[in-house]
Amino acid sequence: MANNPLVSDRNVEFLLYEVFDAEGLCRLSAYEEHSRETFDLVLQNARKFAREVLLPTYKAVDEAPAQRVGEGIRVHPALQAIYPKLVEQGMTAATRPVSVGGQQLPHTVATLCALYGMAANLSAVSYLGLTAGAAHLIEAFGSEALKAEMMSRMYSGQWTGTMALTEPQAGSSLTDVKTTATPTEHGHYLVRGNKVFISGGDQDLTENIVHLTLARIDGAPLGIKGVSLFAVPKKRLESGKLVPNDVHCAGAFHKMGWRGIPSIALNLGENGDCHGWLVGEPHRGISYMFQMMNEARLMVGMQAIATASVAYFESLEYARVRPQGRPLTSKNPASPQVPIIEHADVRRMLLRQKAIVEGALALGVQTALYADVAAHGSTPQERQRAFLLLDMMTPIVKSFSAEKGFESNALAVQIHGGYGYTSEYLPEAWLRDQKLNSIHEGTTCMHSMDLLGRKVLADQGGALRLLRSDIDASIQRASAAGIDPEWCRALERAVARTGDVTMQLASLGMSGNVDEMMLHSVDYLDLFSTVVVAWQWLLQAAVAQEGMAKAASDTSSEFYEGKVCAAEYWIKTELPRVDHLAALCTGGDGSYARMSPAWF
Amino acid sequence: MANNPLVSDRNVEFLLYEVFDAEGLCRLSAYEEHSRETFDLVLQNARKFAREVLLPTYKAVDEAPAQRVGEGIRVHPALQAIYPKLVEQGMTAATRPVSVGGQQLPHTVATLCALYGMAANLSAVSYLGLTAGAAHLIEAFGSEALKAEMMSRMYSGQWTGTMALTEPQAGSSLTDVKTTATPTEHGHYLVRGNKVFISGGDQDLTENIVHLTLARIDGAPLGIKGVSLFAVPKKRLESGKLVPNDVHCAGAFHKMGWRGIPSIALNLGENGDCHGWLVGEPHRGISYMFQMMNEARLMVGMQAIATASVAYFESLEYARVRPQGRPLTSKNPASPQVPIIEHADVRRMLLRQKAIVEGALALGVQTALYADVAAHGSTPQERQRAFLLLDMMTPIVKSFSAEKGFESNALAVQIHGGYGYTSEYLPEAWLRDQKLNSIHEGTTCMHSMDLLGRKVLADQGGALRLLRSDIDASIQRASAAGIDPEWCRALERAVARTGDVTMQLASLGMSGNVDEMMLHSVDYLDLFSTVVVAWQWLLQAAVAQEGMAKAASDTSSEFYEGKVCAAEYWIKTELPRVDHLAALCTGGDGSYARMSPAWF
Repeated sequence: MANNPLVSDRNVEFLLYEVFDAEGLCRLSAYEEHSRETFDLVLQNARKFAREVLLPTYKAVDEAPAQRVGEGIRVHPALQAIYPKLVEQGMTAATRPVSVGGQQLPHTVATLCALYGMAANLSAVSYLGLTAGAAHLIEAFGSEALKAEMMSRMYSGQWTGTMALTEPQAGSSLTDVKTTATPTEHGHYLVRGNKVFISGGDQDLTENIVHLTLARIDGAPLGIKGVSLFAVPKKRLESGKLVPNDVHCAGAFHKMGWRGIPSIALNLGENGDCHGWLVGEPHRGISYMFQMMNEARLMVGMQAIATASVAYFESLEYARVRPQGRPLTSKNPASPQVPIIEHADVRRMLLRQKAIVEGALALGVQTALYADVAAHGSTPQERQRAFLLLDMMTPIVKSFSAEKGFESNALAVQIHGGYGYTSEYLPEAWLRDQKLNSIHEGTTCMHSMDLLGRKVLADQGGALRLLRSDIDASIQRASAAGIDPEWCRALERAVARTGDVTMQLASLGMSGNVDEMMLHSVDYLDLFSTVVVAWQWLLQAAVAQEGMAKAASDTSSEFYEGKVCAAEYWIKTELPRVDHLAALCTGGDGSYARMSPAWF
Repeated sequence: MANNPLVSDRNVEFLLYEVFDAEGLCRLSAYEEHSRETFDLVLQNARKFAREVLLPTYKAVDEAPAQRVGEGIRVHPALQAIYPKLVEQGMTAATRPVSVGGQQLPHTVATLCALYGMAANLSAVSYLGLTAGAAHLIEAFGSEALKAEMMSRMYSGQWTGTMALTEPQAGSSLTDVKTTATPTEHGHYLVRGNKVFISGGDQDLTENIVHLTLARIDGAPLGIKGVSLFAVPKKRLESGKLVPNDVHCAGAFHKMGWRGIPSIALNLGENGDCHGWLVGEPHRGISYMFQMMNEARLMVGMQAIATASVAYFESLEYARVRPQGRPLTSKNPASPQVPIIEHADVRRMLLRQKAIVEGALALGVQTALYADVAAHGSTPQERQRAFLLLDMMTPIVKSFSAEKGFESNALAVQIHGGYGYTSEYLPEAWLRDQKLNSIHEGTTCMHSMDLLGRKVLADQGGALRLLRSDIDASIQRASAAGIDPEWCRALERAVARTGDVTMQLASLGMSGNVDEMMLHSVDYLDLFSTVVVAWQWLLQAAVAQEGMAKAASDTSSEFYEGKVCAAEYWIKTELPRVDHLAALCTGGDGSYARMSPAWF
């Protein structure tokens, strides 16, 4: 563990400066203060902090989760020690404008900085990740008073923030939120209700916590269009002092992972004295949330990639140093055992992890770049184009990384053999952490329906045409770099097939057969993800091939060789699954459509 | 949890008496004392005990693993209370002859009895499962003295037994076992060495434990042919009293699951006073072990099926009672929420679990039937035929159940949503339990090499022809029952394809390209498993179709409908993967063959 890099620095450099032109972002006025030097500086800080401060505390925090003590939650002492240092890193407002205390750093860079911290100690960094999302909601939609009182304290880390959406009777069905908000004459509302699964919903790290809470104003319409957004602090400021705000920790869930950050059940307004302040306009809470969704979902995707990445490197190192067995063709028991990386199937498991981690990461960085251009591109057209692509890639970055990340984490356990099953080693803990990512911020099924039902059909198919043009550009680049034409053709065929499937399903939807259209949405997500990750692998192979032509040393060639090999793996073993998935989506199995609940 | 059936009684009845003719076994002389009545009686006892005694203790035992106290291990108090009752169940020697205190029960039935206990509390029943395996080694190969002194006490549950194979420097590479055994003039050997991952290697349930230990007699040849088998008790009998035998618990591994049974590091002979008794002849330890392997591996397969089964039923019940969301085509927020089983993707996840659990179980029962005929068939030909099939199916029952079982357990967590990630619910615990099954008793890769390198080529391809003829018989039955001819043809094609792939790979091996032959052994295992499970599903669909024709009530029709639906799911969504897997095996991707360790 001691030397686990968490994330490959060389790969980060490759993605930022060879595959994607991160320096080019500095031509946009929002980022004109930045340069490769400032990017590298923040990255270097993030790495050092993650490796030297965050990672060494991971195991202790996993072994002794936050505890309820009296009315509140006591976090692990190691987190108490880390928290001020985490705040000092200044990542909470990293991407926000200088005007609100931020560094105006592109997401493309900030995301990679965050990745190191997530790989080192997911729970620890999540307090501030959630705070950033909550503060951003106030920044975007809140009044000046809320910004001055709450947002600034959140961005500075003096207070933390949470997202308080889920209720016990509703789960993911936000339509069914029942928490109420009664207006008063004093500008605030009286909030009453129960929330569950609130990550960081209580802690003893900071003096206060602001819960960005969904609730219904009395008399609001039924359904999603009657839900409003409120800032509900644990304590409220009265005459410059913090007083209790009738927000109670009703309990902490015991979780299989993410054990450093508690998941809390909150009771709001048990005594009729919970003040909440409306954020933005009444009844628009869900639409505000949705505007922040991409951010939160990309963050979950990155958490998944980080968790798979750290486990990948752990199993890679283990495979290099653990001697066991001999080559198939040399069974002489007098010969020394070989490191298990010499066994082909161990290399398969490592290469599969690499292909998942670095494929998902490339797509994540690509998507962060879309996010930066969507926010700060020079023209409305450029921003709109990037926004459509950002919107389409988001469910994939989130769900592909979570689903395949889980598989990748399981492989890291498998490579460790019996040791992988023990908590003397960390892969089992990372596997436990990973499982949450397919559930929170929307389950895999919900993202598949978002992708198929909304994202790929956006702009009358225009979004899909934009993607196609970006993929075509990468195929051109691969072709020019001398990549095997068969790989390029395989991607072209898969893209065409995906387009056909999409059109078939869309026409089902348009003729009113929504159930049939959506029946294989999870297979469709798998299909689409497999193809766009193949795109990112072909692109990486192209850049690696270009790099090899210019490489000054064997060491840099080795890195590039690894990229080409992983690309080959994905294109030859995963991409061919497209035919099967496409067949399923458009006329395959209807067994579970007709499976009656009584038949199980 | 309270009403979790663990395993479907109706399905057990279906498999035993409708799909496979378990009563027919009573025509064999070994089982002539048995009848459907005795089978049902032991099954009924096993169910009742599992549901009423074992399951209620599962959560407590998972939460508070066995602890090291002083020199030894203290197990959970609940296990202390259960153990005598477990022994009373008499399952340790269930399949053994009456002459050694057994019930001479067919494996076909005993396996299903064991399944309930494994599903209820895997760790608790494993103490006796391991004891049964260890005692059976002494029964098969030990001297009369060892049988009298040790085996009888093990079968009766007075002592437990373990398998002490693994050493820290060797792991799965038994060639590299270093523990030594020095002959003495008194009939015993002095054993010295270190063993790890010894399940149940210490406990305070019984007065003694016998470790069936691999060691090298001084001067033995290097490698696998110099390894002998010893019975090494924790305490030895001297003048009728138990005295310490220099066997020391060096520590307990902390594990992610199976938390009721400790995994122990043992030091043997630290003080030069550890007596071991040779079992069988010198240097034949590995071959003895291998003769018991099928039993142990089928047991792991059953553990995997049991762990997936209990979670399947838990998520099924949750999906039936948990209201959330509305149908896609009815978004009226005033309408009540529907149980999540109404959502197609939840039904997909349930049907996939059913297909995995019941597909693997059918194959497991089929294989147990082969085991019974292999041991007690009426003619040498019949026994040899069954033995070849038993041998071929064993790695599949073990590894398919472990790998797909893990996926199935993850789906049970996913269906529970956020609750699934908490230990207030049990699916997360079963997911943790499941992960071990792809590692212990041979990793998935080792089983894939066993299947491809040995089992499918046995008897010059004769084994494969036997399988083919059994599958053909099922296709005939399906055809006669009126199953969709396209399903039958799909299986026929897949079987033919599997045969072609096998021949291609075999010829690579015969021409000396063993590395190339074995490169995709895990894909080959996946291919082969997918096909034989499809066979078992087609067979079940055929029997269900026959049953429906005769069904007296709607309730029994529902069960049969579910079988046909699950068969359709497997045949339409999983079986088509065969083409992709076959292509990979015979000329697919060579990326990880050429991926140099330095390129990662």
